[in-house]
Amino acid sequence: MVAPKNFLDFVDSNADKFIDRLGEAVAIPSISGDAARREDVKKMAQWLSNQLSQYGVETQFVPLGTQVLDGKTLELPPAVIGKIGNDPSKKTILIYGHFDVQPAQKDDGWNTEPFELHVDKDSGKMFGRGSTDDKGPILGWLNVLDAHHTLGLALPVNLRFVFEGMEESGSEGLDEYISSETAKGTGSYFHGVDAVCISDNYWLNTRTPCLTYGLRGIAYYQIVVSGPGADLHSGIYGGSVYEPMTTLIAIMSKLVAPNGRILIPGVYDGVQAADSNELEKYDALDYSVSDLESAVGGRIANSDDKATLLMGKMRNPSLSLHGIEGAFSGTGAKTVIPATVSGKFSLRLVPPQTPEDITQKVTAYIEEEFAKLQTKNTLKVEYLHGGKAWVADTNHWNFEAARRATEAVYLQTPNYTREGGSIPVTLTIADNLGVNVLLLPMGRADDGAHSTNEKLDISNFIQGTKLLGSYLYEVAEIAK
Amino acid sequence: MVAPKNFLDFVDSNADKFIDRLGEAVAIPSISGDAARREDVKKMAQWLSNQLSQYGVETQFVPLGTQVLDGKTLELPPAVIGKIGNDPSKKTILIYGHFDVQPAQKDDGWNTEPFELHVDKDSGKMFGRGSTDDKGPILGWLNVLDAHHTLGLALPVNLRFVFEGMEESGSEGLDEYISSETAKGTGSYFHGVDAVCISDNYWLNTRTPCLTYGLRGIAYYQIVVSGPGADLHSGIYGGSVYEPMTTLIAIMSKLVAPNGRILIPGVYDGVQAADSNELEKYDALDYSVSDLESAVGGRIANSDDKATLLMGKMRNPSLSLHGIEGAFSGTGAKTVIPATVSGKFSLRLVPPQTPEDITQKVTAYIEEEFAKLQTKNTLKVEYLHGGKAWVADTNHWNFEAARRATEAVYLQTPNYTREGGSIPVTLTIADNLGVNVLLLPMGRADDGAHSTNEKLDISNFIQGTKLLGSYLYEVAEIAK
Ligand SMILES: [Zn+2]
Ligand SMILES: [Zn+2]
Ligand SMILES: [Zn+2]
Ligand SMILES: [Zn+2]
Repeated sequence: MVAPKNFLDFVDSNADKFIDRLGEAVAIPSISGDAARREDVKKMAQWLSNQLSQYGVETQFVPLGTQVLDGKTLELPPAVIGKIGNDPSKKTILIYGHFDVQPAQKDDGWNTEPFELHVDKDSGKMFGRGSTDDKGPILGWLNVLDAHHTLGLALPVNLRFVFEGMEESGSEGLDEYISSETAKGTGSYFHGVDAVCISDNYWLNTRTPCLTYGLRGIAYYQIVVSGPGADLHSGIYGGSVYEPMTTLIAIMSKLVAPNGRILIPGVYDGVQAADSNELEKYDALDYSVSDLESAVGGRIANSDDKATLLMGKMRNPSLSLHGIEGAFSGTGAKTVIPATVSGKFSLRLVPPQTPEDITQKVTAYIEEEFAKLQTKNTLKVEYLHGGKAWVADTNHWNFEAARRATEAVYLQTPNYTREGGSIPVTLTIADNLGVNVLLLPMGRADDGAHSTNEKLDISNFIQGTKLLGSYLYEVAEIAK
Repeated sequence: MVAPKNFLDFVDSNADKFIDRLGEAVAIPSISGDAARREDVKKMAQWLSNQLSQYGVETQFVPLGTQVLDGKTLELPPAVIGKIGNDPSKKTILIYGHFDVQPAQKDDGWNTEPFELHVDKDSGKMFGRGSTDDKGPILGWLNVLDAHHTLGLALPVNLRFVFEGMEESGSEGLDEYISSETAKGTGSYFHGVDAVCISDNYWLNTRTPCLTYGLRGIAYYQIVVSGPGADLHSGIYGGSVYEPMTTLIAIMSKLVAPNGRILIPGVYDGVQAADSNELEKYDALDYSVSDLESAVGGRIANSDDKATLLMGKMRNPSLSLHGIEGAFSGTGAKTVIPATVSGKFSLRLVPPQTPEDITQKVTAYIEEEFAKLQTKNTLKVEYLHGGKAWVADTNHWNFEAARRATEAVYLQTPNYTREGGSIPVTLTIADNLGVNVLLLPMGRADDGAHSTNEKLDISNFIQGTKLLGSYLYEVAEIAK
């Protein structure tokens, strides 16, 4: 069931209004990581609740408790939840999004004020903090509701919304809410949800819409090596003591080969090689080595083969060395022997890897390599944080609906992608609700979420609004 | 010729006056590295010149030009040079010292105000910035001049003084002055200097006076590895690109073994192993493994053998890894793939190593190891700064005089030491004047120069004053 023509026309003819509304949203600097902006995050929650209400959504604020930030105890911004439609003959879709944003200041390198949406009609781009992450997608849903409400059209599905204001700061409070709410069973706000749709990631390139069905997990570590009681002068003591940096660098050099192969024994256990069927999927994606190299700004791809590259960043584990805490890190030439140094690194995980299992292997290997060094420094391996990987079934009707909607709106077959990074709430929702979760991005690979000059293309906002609406109609169609 | 009894008695009976004068000197915060304290450095130059003048020394201020500090062009503090005695039948000794100090603030961890000399009669220690580095030793010479002037005693040698106010900030301007002055030949201020005495280092322990005859040189490098155009997110790109940190850590791990052995081919060329004669010298030093381990605050000595340890820090080359610029160096867990990282390391050099020769070997080796890694990152090896090692002839009468003076004052045979670090002016003076240079320290190993709670023991100040005076008498004796 293709979306009705009057819905699609309404979206086109109300583009300016939608853009103005995005401008209103961007103008509220709802930075969750900045204690001084906490009231703006709450203001954004209120604004969103008002918007939803005017289109007939019953909303509630969910208090999420307090946090300590910059030494102060602060109330967390409430989650905004909403409900529209209760027709047992229709499917029920849960929508997730976040209304908080990353910090931004003009002098970070922005060409325009980050909290004033700058619409450049020539390039078709709208610049502003939150334009693509994640206010644009949230407003896509508002546009869909607006169209149906104004046109007097019934929504083809029942909708439930969970919008949070702490995503950019670790989704504090949300996991507990989702699990305790889900635990209520038939009395739960989420009771009856058939599938989930999250629009908070990006296309693989700048040309092809995509459906995302996997996320890598993560396990983050630090290796702490200590020796003297305080930093030493290398002139005075160099050559007479075991130096922590020498020990640490020796260990860090044994974690991963220059080509990216992880050297920790057992780390690949259970990770299947891709069969020809899976390889074909990656070959089918609209992507190239030069897409990667222009995105990273250097000719540093570790393979000439597109599928290998894509699997490297999406479906295989990886290990990155991030840096060293405690050593000299400034410009210039300081002759210090640092007393205690912490090497930071993390692995990106894929099924069936788990942080628990990987931590055992990492720790055992590092302790073994450390013993071989026969140094008198001391060693500690610390697991700092982590999370499991997530992979969804793309044969599910939820993905099928999104595919049909994409083909209807964009006249293109979507890329089916996995993402290398994690969006932890995805896993929380999938695990708790036990239903299929679809990631349906609105923006492009070059939108620069978290960067300066973050943008959303007008066409992605408008076509994206049609896509979200059409997806609901396709869900309804399949559900019959 | 032992120093006359009335000189020695004068020193003992004027101890309080000498300590008060040290208090006056410490109270002038002559921090050469702080533009806001430049006037205090100049004030200190004036104070020192006045002190020298009252005891009959003809002084001059030597302008050393300007420098740029904190974005401002500043006049360098002048050097204070002085001359007393012109008897062709006497030896002429050049004395060097510096009247500037390291920065210090009470809240760095000082127990007392750093610029108020705190005299603790119970422990016999005097705390204050500059107490041991290098105002105490300079004032030792003032005390000697004071005694001779007041007692109407003729000095046993002619003296020349060079005191600078920029030692803690790279001795800016001094090298040029010393070489251009020396180049004047018979018209030079330094014409006729027979030997040099510098009191600006420390005993090897807290018990035994020492004469220092060697300093290691240094060659400081950074290895710059680049890849992407900007920092990348390890979730999005980890596994698909060659990461600069992986490349850098692999190279840094190939520079030095955990036990301190340098792995760069040819780096030990020409460095002789110690023969039994030399080993005996190190065995004879009053030092132990526990002296080292208590000084560094950890049981990390890389040998159980005293001579091996001492040679490791004094007479053999060493390599220390200092840190990495451009990588994540904070607390916490940032998932970054840094775009450009610079690994810093330095070698301490001994004869016949030179920075030029070592730089060729370091660069060739790193480029070769980099090629083996087969990465698409780019590499640059940069030599940041360096200086040659210095070793003096301990059989020279200058050392013989210092040994006799030490035995007379302390009733102990001195330790003969080399130092692991560099005091670049030593080499400048030795190379330009072409005469023997003696380092004759006043303070102890635990004085904490450059640290919080810097101190000088009263006994080192008073006995040290006798030592400096006695040294002049022994020079005169040998010169006969
Ligand atoms: Zn987001
Ligand atoms: Zn974000
Ligand atoms: Zn000094
Ligand atoms: Zn110093």
